[in-house]
Amino acid sequence: MRRSGPELAERIRRVLLAALPDGHEHPELERFARLQRVYPERPGKTLRGQLVVLSSAAHDGDMDAALVTAAGLELFQNWVLVHDDIEDDSEQRRGGPALHRMVAPAVALNVGDAMHVAMWRLLLTLPTAADRPVDREAVLREFLWMIDRTAEGQHLDLSWVADGRFDISEDDYLTMVTLKTAYYTVVSPLRLGAACAGRPPSPVFTEAGRDLGVAFQIRDDVLNLRRDVAYGKEFAGDLYEGKRTLILAHLLAHASADEAAEVREVLARPRDAKQPEAIERVLAAIERHGSLDYAQTLAEARARRGLERLHDALAELPGADAALEIEELVRSLAARTV
Amino acid sequence: MRRSGPELAERIRRVLLAALPDGHEHPELERFARLQRVYPERPGKTLRGQLVVLSSAAHDGDMDAALVTAAGLELFQNWVLVHDDIEDDSEQRRGGPALHRMVAPAVALNVGDAMHVAMWRLLLTLPTAADRPVDREAVLREFLWMIDRTAEGQHLDLSWVADGRFDISEDDYLTMVTLKTAYYTVVSPLRLGAACAGRPPSPVFTEAGRDLGVAFQIRDDVLNLRRDVAYGKEFAGDLYEGKRTLILAHLLAHASADEAAEVREVLARPRDAKQPEAIERVLAAIERHGSLDYAQTLAEARARRGLERLHDALAELPGADAALEIEELVRSLAARTV
Repeated sequence: MRRSGPELAERIRRVLLAALPDGHEHPELERFARLQRVYPERPGKTLRGQLVVLSSAAHDGDMDAALVTAAGLELFQNWVLVHDDIEDDSEQRRGGPALHRMVAPAVALNVGDAMHVAMWRLLLTLPTAADRPVDREAVLREFLWMIDRTAEGQHLDLSWVADGRFDISEDDYLTMVTLKTAYYTVVSPLRLGAACAGRPPSPVFTEAGRDLGVAFQIRDDVLNLRRDVAYGKEFAGDLYEGKRTLILAHLLAHASADEAAEVREVLARPRDAKQPEAIERVLAAIERHGSLDYAQTLAEARARRGLERLHDALAELPGADAALEIEELVRSLAARTV
Repeated sequence: MRRSGPELAERIRRVLLAALPDGHEHPELERFARLQRVYPERPGKTLRGQLVVLSSAAHDGDMDAALVTAAGLELFQNWVLVHDDIEDDSEQRRGGPALHRMVAPAVALNVGDAMHVAMWRLLLTLPTAADRPVDREAVLREFLWMIDRTAEGQHLDLSWVADGRFDISEDDYLTMVTLKTAYYTVVSPLRLGAACAGRPPSPVFTEAGRDLGVAFQIRDDVLNLRRDVAYGKEFAGDLYEGKRTLILAHLLAHASADEAAEVREVLARPRDAKQPEAIERVLAAIERHGSLDYAQTLAEARARRGLERLHDALAELPGADAALEIEELVRSLAARTV
């Protein structure tokens, strides 16, 4: 019996949406409640949440606890995206306008804070009773740890842009995306599944999840610069936002001094001063130096290594069917095309 | 034996600061840790935290749990202020520059999120053991409830400014500040103290705390427009930020049509376009209509009513000395001069 897929996504979404306020007698607070539901109500695959449920099943865990934990993780993702979009001044999210472009950024910031609190409220509904397998304290600890790592990665990402730094090496980039993306996308979902079963997580989850999560983020960076792919974000938004990516690190390491100077100059401009022609010149340089292919190849190597490492650890778990589905899901995650 | 004062403030601050990261091997993450400590390290009276400790003592509560809860409340205040200052684009906080004016606003926003997580980490150190009087779940529930109310009040405040609304009545204002300030300043500290003792809070705390908290916020609004008071924020910052205050509601309700139109026009300008002369004209109108005195008088009436209501409820608590100190502290809070 297959567990993951649209039906599981829908179950997770239902728990998530039920954790958010819905309606209020005060019209302005009714609007406040509605704003908290904007991102969660947009179509999303809830892959991270599904990974929690699969990992819990593979560990013989509690399904109710897994759904709550999965929805908590998706709610985390949603509030982070609201704040992230403000921080990057992104234009789009999941095929619609970014929240801070629908309402004042100040209002959107506060909406994100309210969603953050809703996440803790949901997680604190996990049972404390000794007759249930879920280790509630372990779930809460994992969230604390995961949010810290994500915020650290976010800090590196944001401060490099804010400080106009272009001396970001491939290693710097990998450190940043491991913190910013890999933990909450793969490592923590796998570990949370174990906590839902009251079991210690395999130490392999950490290394393998880092590889797979890094592959996922590089793939995201690559897709952002692929004109032919519509994946819910603005084409080349990373260049408009001046993001330091692996693609950019490769380009700057291989470009001529003149080319590199031009790329730096364009990326350092404020968003409004980045004409499409200037962005096209950067895209041409990326093409010329094969930086997109380089990134794609590195992502594939990481995904392969992560999958190999994960395979043996998963083979030891009691739920063999669910373990197989985990492999499938993380493979599709790391090789995502949209 | 007197409990409140600088010594207790110092004890709370120590618990608070120990809950924040301190140092990191990565230089940029060391900076991230340092940024989280900027507001907490500035001088502050931690009155809300002290109120938690006093209320716990009055309920015969656990001192260690009260200190953790008090520090958690102060940490709440600190992360909210980081976000609040971004939302209002404030210039100063506790006598220094606002955090988003020291670093990029995007970086400051993320710092606030990390501080928010640190607050939950600290609260989750509260003991679950049945041999300790503290009701950890009640403390966590109170925080969830309190942060929701504060975010709702914040939403009203921000959306009125963002939407350029000037039809804010005295009742609207009182609803907003009850949510935004009164709960976390007085109601929740009193209730948290009861939770630290594992006792149910008196229902009187809610009504009395609302009155006292509203008095505190109105007093804050009044101080902001008093040229002769230096209290850590920019003089007339509320006018530069276009805040809807009781003073403004009174002024607009009593000004002539021409005066009101001018006041609206000035306040609706973007901050950069608010020349000091224009702000002076608004201040002169406030003076002319006695709006500051009106607000001050209403604050005093609320404080009096709140204190009367609180008095009887406090008389029933086991810790009589601490109960007396609570009265003293909330009186000074509502009548604050700096």
